[in-house]
Amino acid sequence: MKIEAFTDREATAFPGVEGVTIRWMIGKRDDAPNFAMRVIEVEPGCQTPFHSHDYEHEVFILQGEGVIKDADAQEHHIETGSTVFIRANEEHGFYNRGEGVLRFICMVPHVEGLEPVGVGETGDVC
Amino acid sequence: MKIEAFTDREATAFPGVEGVTIRWMIGKRDDAPNFAMRVIEVEPGCQTPFHSHDYEHEVFILQGEGVIKDADAQEHHIETGSTVFIRANEEHGFYNRGEGVLRFICMVPHVEGLEPVGVGETGDVC
Repeated sequence: MKIEAFTDREATAFPGVEGVTIRWMIGKRDDAPNFAMRVIEVEPGCQTPFHSHDYEHEVFILQGEGVIKDADAQEHHIETGSTVFIRANEEHGFYNRGEGVLRFICMVPHVEGLEPVGVGETGDVC
Repeated sequence: MKIEAFTDREATAFPGVEGVTIRWMIGKRDDAPNFAMRVIEVEPGCQTPFHSHDYEHEVFILQGEGVIKDADAQEHHIETGSTVFIRANEEHGFYNRGEGVLRFICMVPHVEGLEPVGVGETGDVC
């Protein structure tokens, strides 16, 4: 087994995405056979890119509060303890509307080209 | 998308496993295509069954502290913020050694017969 505090892993910033970092905690590099665990942090007033892709997200909000926008520009409140399932091809973005960091786990299936293989690469944000 | 506070879902107790509950938050019933999210709680002094199975766990410790025992009876400390990858066929058990609840997310791939399909069923604990 592998045990690692998420705070022991350096957070990687996204080029061109202000105030968002990612840590790939468990993934292909650990020989995880099916899916990966990332910890994502969004600073107050910042957001992840509004986008969609052909794979799902399973999310648990660890800390903070904000909204997820959907394809109709509707805002859905999230806070500590929220679980979120975003289906493949659903448009989404995570917006921090709180005063502290918005931190969440974002699980993804193994997708070719998604997980970074080199130092300093980030992969997809969420 | 589906958003649900884990506290809005009733926790299901395991028959014969004292002080352990599970909530299946995201799974096949949501048409999640690849893997499932469960929230597991272990009361102080209690533990999940010591066992192994042919699929992996990806775990994030949300609250509390304790140990995971491995096949050699070695104890590995876990606490809030620990991430844990347990490979297929690795023996493991989660032991709450703290004064409060030990709460964690335990992600599993879709396995035939694992996820409960009826009310009151529990599936595998962790």
